[in-house]
Formats: sequence, structure tokens, C-alpha cells
Amino acid sequence: MKLNSNYLNLKESYLFAEIAHRVGAYKASHPDERVISLGIGDVTLPLTDSAVAALRKAVDEQSRAETFRGYGPERGYAFLRDAVCDYYADKGVSLDAEEIFVSDGAKSDLGNMPELFGNSRVLMPDPVYPAYYDVNVMAGNEMHFAEGTVDNGFLPAPPEDGRFDIIYLCSPSNPTGAVYSAQQLKEWVDFARATDAVIFFDAAYESFVRDGNLPTSIYLVEGAKECAVEFCSFSKTAGFTGLRCGYTVVPKGIAEGKLNALWNRRQTTKFNGVPYIVQRAAQAVLTAEGRAEIGRNVGYYMQNATVIHNALQDAGITHTGGVNSPYVWMKCPAGRTSWEFFDELLTRAQVVGTPGVGFGKTGEGWFRLTAFGAHDDTLVAAERLNALCRSLS
Amino acid sequence: MKLNSNYLNLKESYLFAEIAHRVGAYKASHPDERVISLGIGDVTLPLTDSAVAALRKAVDEQSRAETFRGYGPERGYAFLRDAVCDYYADKGVSLDAEEIFVSDGAKSDLGNMPELFGNSRVLMPDPVYPAYYDVNVMAGNEMHFAEGTVDNGFLPAPPEDGRFDIIYLCSPSNPTGAVYSAQQLKEWVDFARATDAVIFFDAAYESFVRDGNLPTSIYLVEGAKECAVEFCSFSKTAGFTGLRCGYTVVPKGIAEGKLNALWNRRQTTKFNGVPYIVQRAAQAVLTAEGRAEIGRNVGYYMQNATVIHNALQDAGITHTGGVNSPYVWMKCPAGRTSWEFFDELLTRAQVVGTPGVGFGKTGEGWFRLTAFGAHDDTLVAAERLNALCRSLS
Repeated sequence: MKLNSNYLNLKESYLFAEIAHRVGAYKASHPDERVISLGIGDVTLPLTDSAVAALRKAVDEQSRAETFRGYGPERGYAFLRDAVCDYYADKGVSLDAEEIFVSDGAKSDLGNMPELFGNSRVLMPDPVYPAYYDVNVMAGNEMHFAEGTVDNGFLPAPPEDGRFDIIYLCSPSNPTGAVYSAQQLKEWVDFARATDAVIFFDAAYESFVRDGNLPTSIYLVEGAKECAVEFCSFSKTAGFTGLRCGYTVVPKGIAEGKLNALWNRRQTTKFNGVPYIVQRAAQAVLTAEGRAEIGRNVGYYMQNATVIHNALQDAGITHTGGVNSPYVWMKCPAGRTSWEFFDELLTRAQVVGTPGVGFGKTGEGWFRLTAFGAHDDTLVAAERLNALCRSLS
Repeated sequence: MKLNSNYLNLKESYLFAEIAHRVGAYKASHPDERVISLGIGDVTLPLTDSAVAALRKAVDEQSRAETFRGYGPERGYAFLRDAVCDYYADKGVSLDAEEIFVSDGAKSDLGNMPELFGNSRVLMPDPVYPAYYDVNVMAGNEMHFAEGTVDNGFLPAPPEDGRFDIIYLCSPSNPTGAVYSAQQLKEWVDFARATDAVIFFDAAYESFVRDGNLPTSIYLVEGAKECAVEFCSFSKTAGFTGLRCGYTVVPKGIAEGKLNALWNRRQTTKFNGVPYIVQRAAQAVLTAEGRAEIGRNVGYYMQNATVIHNALQDAGITHTGGVNSPYVWMKCPAGRTSWEFFDELLTRAQVVGTPGVGFGKTGEGWFRLTAFGAHDDTLVAAERLNALCRSLS
């Protein structure tokens, strides 16, 4: 049987699967230990009240023939696309509802959209969310990297020269927590327009930006509507990691509307839309009440970020993020590699984090912690992390 | 901007979008007419009671931190994969839960799975569900067709020679309603094994098979676990068209387990699973109570199929399907083309159907009707259809 040779080029295992494997093995042999995860970016707060109320109402509708809704529009119901437009309008960004595509999460759309470009030259940050890399291996694309280092504050600038078809950016960054300024994003937009590239802008963590001077959408930058697709998610703010809903903005200004039309064609052919009941929950998240709730959720998680930040600061560990982002990016103590520190943190402190090298080669010797845990757990984990780091220094 | 040239080869419009456009235009200019759709395969019965109860319970769980579930396994929760295994066991098919992948619907998986094969030679029926064709245009694949005609009962047999990488089959067929016997499927399985091809078996309508001698799964045929992937859905039986859940079976017997592993890798990288609450609803559909409910739904729709069948028979119109299938495939009266009859049926009888030519070139002059309407509507539509056909003969 002839299988796709690009798929056969994939490395053995997906980062989070490997972590789950090691944690599972440790727990199996240490059943009484309290292992706390500051690893994978799953949330601990449940669905917001508005979302739950909207779900209940929508389930009632789906239980009766008079109000039942079957196949919906693949791109999403107008009620939700309009609500997303209103959300952007409040940021000062004017979008048309036809530019919004409701998705089952940013991961799906970030993975599927390269299809529209065929064989491509792709530029992505390093370190980076590993799925960006894997989907482009699957597509057989030629990959190049813009390195995020201490020297550039983990915010790589466009290269001096070179042409790329697709440029991935993520701000606030997963994994480093660094956030581009409007001026820095403008350099990327100018570069993309000058070289006829598309930017895939992953804005999944935009709600965590508290500094009013930092942009929460690439469309706050002039010219972005001519070159940038923006991916967003309800996962981290409203507890939608298990409910699955996000949205993708494909402006009609890109390639004279062709990209918007092709994405619509892709979605109508290979996707049947997000569940009606889930779209009603997402709509509720974007009401005034829903937004107040997610503001409180963000506040809760950012308290955790502060706790982690303080623990590292106290131990004298170099780190970034955790201010306008739920991610903290720390240098492994005492010259440890990422996986050495992973194992040490797991077996000596019973805390799970994510090895930086899993996000790319410049991540070697670095480590990602997340603020999505329960607050009590995070307090305990931060104390253990602090003690381990001190003992290693 | 360099866009995928394969996408640019797509024909202008997707069948159902064109239908929606024509119906919308007619309704706008005839606001008082009662237009009845026997067209797109959406259902009219609401979610089954078991599914609704399971949804309500799961929403409650998601509203509390103690019972909240975030990211689930991309391939689906074990509780649902186990329930699917039980469902197959009752048919006499033994599957491993690791061979089941929960999806957001058969359409997504049927569209995405060609990725695993790269550039391929593909054989599909004609007429056929148009998304099969479109996704392979998008992939730049080389397409060949096995024609379903009156002479072979719309059940094409394998070709005498030729090699293909992927073979699509659909039984009960969309659009013709024809159902393969076990012996006929065995010919396809033998052909696939002899030529090292994979079969994509679309079993979305298996619940409509009432004749106990006809297979409801390709795995009832010897050797199928070495060559066939089976796609199934809760859409038509349990009212899940707007809730979005299906499942795909990728046996480990195919390519020594490689296809199962690659599909798992694809799903873990580009998909984040089906909502937890939806998986609980699907699990409820597969309980004894849930299965009794879908049996009643199938009975309701099959009454409609009988009404349509009788109306055509009375008018002397050649047709097939509607016995072990919710689809009826009729010859357009008086030599009309598919779209001519579509327009005539819409404007003279205010009934919407689906032009056969939209399913491939052998569908020209044929027309698809579906049994998924409300019973009262179907009675009225069948009467109007009968009168129009008589007036044209």
C-alpha cells in the first residue's frame, strides 16, 4: 500500500504524547505521590456560567422538532459570526461577518489551512507550538526558522532577505509568553506584503494581554488585512478545551478575496460545522456578561502566573513570560538539558512541565510552565519548583 | 500569493450550495408558496431522548470544576469507542477499541483521510456523493470511475484490470439507495487485496438496511479487515446532523498497522477531538434504549420512503432505492435533464430534490429524493410529485 512519504518523515512521537507516557509510567510506579501538572495547556476552571446556560437552552431546542436545527452553515451561524465582529469592533477592528469562520478549535484550522497553498516555503518561529512544524512535515513543505532567543526577547524580527509563502507568528507566544509590540508586528506585515507571503497569526492567548499598549489582534496593524489570517479560540478563557470552538479570520483583502473563497470551499467540502449547541455557548461567551466572566478567569490564571514568576525570581532563575501570557519560559538550572530537567522535576518534585526542546532546537535547555492549574496546586508546585532550583544552583 | 493549483481546478460551486441558491431565489419571489424539501439529506426528527438526557448530564458535569473535563483523547473517549465495539460485536464483527476513531462526522474523515496516501490513483462510483470527488480534486489525485447504471443495478463491480490506491464504496448508496450483497462486496475486497488498494467504505446509512441478508458493515466480509476503512455516522438515525459525531474504523490489519498509526498521528496533530458532551450523547445512542429509539426513527423515515416509492410507481416512473435506504433514485420523466426537472419540480410543484447530474455524469437524467422530511410534508410532496410526473408523461 502506497502511503504518503511525507507522513513517514514525521518524528516518532508528538511532544505531549511522550510527556503523558513518562508521567503515566512515573505515576504507575509511585501511586501515592501527588503529581501536579504545570505542563500541557489544559484549563482547570469549568465552563463559564453564561456558556452553561446557553448550552442548556440550546439542548432544549434540539430536543423538540419545532426548534430542532440540523446541518448548519459550515462557516458558522451568523449569530456567532456577528458576535465575533462586535468583539473585534470593540478593539477598533472592523470586520465583515463573511470574513469569520467558526472552527472546532485553532489547532484544526492552523493544521488544515496550509492545504490552500500547496507545496510551500514556510517560515516559523523556533521555539514554536510543535503542531505548526508537524503539519508542515505532513505537507512536505520546506521549513525555515526565525529564532527566538534571549537577545531578541524571544521575538524574532523578519529576516533581511528571503521569500516565504507562509509565515507563522504567535503572540502572546506559545511557548515563551513573549508579546509583540504593534511596531514589531508592523515589520512582519510590511515584510509579508513586500514578499507576497501570508501570515498565519495565532492569537489564541490574546485575552491574556493586560498591557493596553500591546496589540491583541494583528489587524490593529496597518496593512494586516491584506496579508494576515488570524486564529482565535475560546479554549483557555471560557473553559472550552473540551467543548471545542474557535474562529478564524480570513480577510477579503488577501489575494483579492481568493483566500477567503478557497477556505470557504475547503470548509464546505471537508467539514460540516461546529455543533449548534456549542456555537450558542460561544455566542454567550461574547456577551457583556460572558466577557466579564472570562475576565475573571483570566485574572485567576494570571495570579498563578505571578506565583510561578515569583518562585523562579526568588531562586534566581532566568525566565520570561507570565505577565501578558499564561506561559512562563524558564532556563533550566545548572546547565540541565530540557528533558533532564523534566525528569528531575517529575521524580524529585512531582511537578510536570514541558521540555523546551520539544518546541524546537533553540528551546534546548529551556522549559515551559503554564498558569492553567488550580490555584492551590500551583502554590504547592511553585514551592517545590523553587526548592528544586535552589538545590541545583 | 502562490495558491494551491489543485484548488483552482475545482468547479465553480458545490452542488448543495447551488440548490440552496436556486431555492432561495424562488422563495424570495414566491413568499407565499409552501416549498417542501426532499432534497438535501438533513433530518427532521429531533435528537433522541437518550441523547438529550446524556447531553444534559454532561453539561452539568462541565459546569463544575470537580467533574469538568478539558482536552480529551483526540481519537475519542474509551467509553464511546468501547460502545462502538459492542455495537459491532452484536453484528458479529470483532474490533479492538484502538481501531475506532471518533470523528465530528463522516464527511470530515472521508475528506481528510486521502492525505495519508499522498498523490493517488482513486476509483470511485459514478454517481457518487460529490464531496468524494471534490476532496480528490483538491488533493490533485487521478480519478477513475466505476459506473452505476440500470444494467448493474447501480452496483458497479470491480474492473477487470487496473490498479488503484484508494477505492471509495458507499452502501447503502448515496445517491442511488442501492445496497451491495456480501458476495458483491467480497469481489471488491478480493480486488483490493490483490491490487494492494485501500477501500474507503462509507456506511453512513447502514441502519436503514432492513433485509437481514444484506451486510451492514464491510467487515462482515472475509478479508475486509486487511484492506477496508469504514466510516459511520449518528447523523441520520439519532438526529446528529447539527450535533456532529461519527466514527471511523481503521483496522490494524491494514498495512501491518501503519494506516492506523498514521491516522492517529494525523488526528492528534490536526484535530482536538469531539466535544465531551457530544460523545456522551453518542454513547447514549448505542445503549439498548438508544438503539430502540433510532429503530423508531428509521421506521418513521422508511414510511416516507414507501410513500415516495408508491407515488413514483403509480406514475410509472423508473426508480430504485427506498427499500433498505432513505434515498430514492428516479429517472426524470419525459427525457428531462436533471436540472430541467429540478427547476420544473421546484416551480410547478414546489418540491425540492437533488439533480442526479450533481453526483456525476452518469447521474444526468436522474434525480434523488430523500425520506428525511416530516411525514405530513412528504405526503403532500409525493402527491405533487405524482401529479407532475403524470402531467409530463
